[in-house]
Amino acid sequence: MSGNKLRLAIIGSGNWGSAIARIAGRNMIRHSDTFHPEVRMYVHEESINGQKLTEIINAKHENVKYLPGIPIPENVVAVPSATAAAQDADLLIFVTPHQFIASICSELKGKIKPSTQALSMIKGVEVKDGNINIFADVIEKLLGCKCSALSGANIANEVAQDKFSETTIGYRPGEHEKAELWFKVFDTPFFRVGLVEDVAGVSLCGALKNVVAIAAGFTDGLGWGDNAKAAVMRIGLMEMKSFCEEFFEGVKAETFTETSAGIADLITTCFGGRNRKCAEAFVKTGKSFPVLEKELLNGQRLQGVETAREVYTFLEARGRQQGYPLFTAVHQISSGDYKPSEMTSHL
Amino acid sequence: MSGNKLRLAIIGSGNWGSAIARIAGRNMIRHSDTFHPEVRMYVHEESINGQKLTEIINAKHENVKYLPGIPIPENVVAVPSATAAAQDADLLIFVTPHQFIASICSELKGKIKPSTQALSMIKGVEVKDGNINIFADVIEKLLGCKCSALSGANIANEVAQDKFSETTIGYRPGEHEKAELWFKVFDTPFFRVGLVEDVAGVSLCGALKNVVAIAAGFTDGLGWGDNAKAAVMRIGLMEMKSFCEEFFEGVKAETFTETSAGIADLITTCFGGRNRKCAEAFVKTGKSFPVLEKELLNGQRLQGVETAREVYTFLEARGRQQGYPLFTAVHQISSGDYKPSEMTSHL
Repeated sequence: MSGNKLRLAIIGSGNWGSAIARIAGRNMIRHSDTFHPEVRMYVHEESINGQKLTEIINAKHENVKYLPGIPIPENVVAVPSATAAAQDADLLIFVTPHQFIASICSELKGKIKPSTQALSMIKGVEVKDGNINIFADVIEKLLGCKCSALSGANIANEVAQDKFSETTIGYRPGEHEKAELWFKVFDTPFFRVGLVEDVAGVSLCGALKNVVAIAAGFTDGLGWGDNAKAAVMRIGLMEMKSFCEEFFEGVKAETFTETSAGIADLITTCFGGRNRKCAEAFVKTGKSFPVLEKELLNGQRLQGVETAREVYTFLEARGRQQGYPLFTAVHQISSGDYKPSEMTSHL
Repeated sequence: MSGNKLRLAIIGSGNWGSAIARIAGRNMIRHSDTFHPEVRMYVHEESINGQKLTEIINAKHENVKYLPGIPIPENVVAVPSATAAAQDADLLIFVTPHQFIASICSELKGKIKPSTQALSMIKGVEVKDGNINIFADVIEKLLGCKCSALSGANIANEVAQDKFSETTIGYRPGEHEKAELWFKVFDTPFFRVGLVEDVAGVSLCGALKNVVAIAAGFTDGLGWGDNAKAAVMRIGLMEMKSFCEEFFEGVKAETFTETSAGIADLITTCFGGRNRKCAEAFVKTGKSFPVLEKELLNGQRLQGVETAREVYTFLEARGRQQGYPLFTAVHQISSGDYKPSEMTSHL
């Protein structure tokens, strides 16, 4: 009987969502005293060679489009409706691209249990009316349920292959017991979960690291060497921390300097990833970011450049650019106002 | 007139010593209100094609052996005697290989001014009678003068070329004013100095980072990917901090997590450098470290492996290995007791 066991649902099934469905699905079985075995996963329906993606996932137990070659546990069931996935859930993971959150939440509003606990794995932040909002807060406001956040040095394909990694869950003040539940959902010997009472810090690390990765890519492009790159990363980490401490409540310094969501994710992003790579190409080719986005990213916007612009606008409105010289320099260089070689002269 | 201006001397003239002589020499001129222009640099005399190295340096203003191609300011004067270099100095930099410290200090004892301030740029730690001592403490004890420490993400050749970098000076409690003097000796627009009231932390970072770099090299050799490497670096940084907080007095957490000597130097060492490289080869070739040291390092001992062994012995004597699973694993793997793939199973 699993009448009072907790039900998990996952809203989203891209690369990261599928990787995490594999981990969470296995943990439902491993901790069968706590959890209901079935995990419903909302899949935005699409057709793959004439067959529905939900049907393929449920037949083959593999997301052939977004995480090919990796088995998904059979107790994870793909459903084409967010409401059908979420309506019985006690624990609700959001792992969709951020542009879908508002519409999904408005669909779910009033249809989920009042006691449902949410967790956001959404990358980035929402910028609206000159404010920067984290998606855990957006979800809390739209759905009226508590929302934690998960972020870390988590390249999805490596996690999916059970390569060792760590992650960080940020929880709300006083909610440590509920965070322990989320710990059980995610923690494995190859995916180690750390807990920190700081939802905003965990969420903002995931957005701001991309700005620092642009700066790191500039140093690569300039051929400035290892000392300069490490210095820029250190300065960037300190600006991430100061920015969040100045403008968000309840942020903890150690989220930035000691967790997987902070320093570890910054390291992976400044050495791998498209932000670093495009910033290096920006310096070496002299092409603008819009041109590079067309050539290298198929027209997709580069997150670090976008976030740098949003952060700059936010700081400028408050007359606080001087407090964040690296963030400011990244925006000024990206937009062509500074030369890349001037990056450190204002630090 | 420069009667009461402060005199700087540098004990050591290798790659790093010569790079720093260039910076300090120029700063003596730049801050001529504070400093005497002449910097005496002790050079362990040797013959280069029949000519004395001190004479070559003083004639060509270049250390042709240890920092070829980089001009050294003319106000830096090479002298073949440590006593002659140090006897009038108010500020005394030690930047020799650590094995020469005891004999140099015993030569200098009683011959320097009682008010002399020392600063150690010596890499590594002294292990004696089961204790781990930092060289700033060794110098203080042997010479009876206060000793600060400088360390950071400072690859010497990059610093010598004025590529942007940062460094950290650790100073003794209550000595901030004197640290400001050291700041003036070193700080330039391309070599940014941070100050922290923590001599032990700054010194120990420079030794312990090499242990973490061995672990990072193992993950490279195992092909574990970016998440695992960042996780191992994060865990290593936390063990560095805990180790120093547990066994050394007055250590500050932020020395590890926020300074160039801490996180930034860890990054350069885990991505470049011989420790990482040899550890990768250890996994990929299956050869032992003594064999790799012969083949890749001309018989020189690999610092990270040595330090891991010393740290392990130190912890074992105190029954504290369990508190430091990564440090312990590095030693057990290096010495052949664990397989590299077992590195994270004990974390």
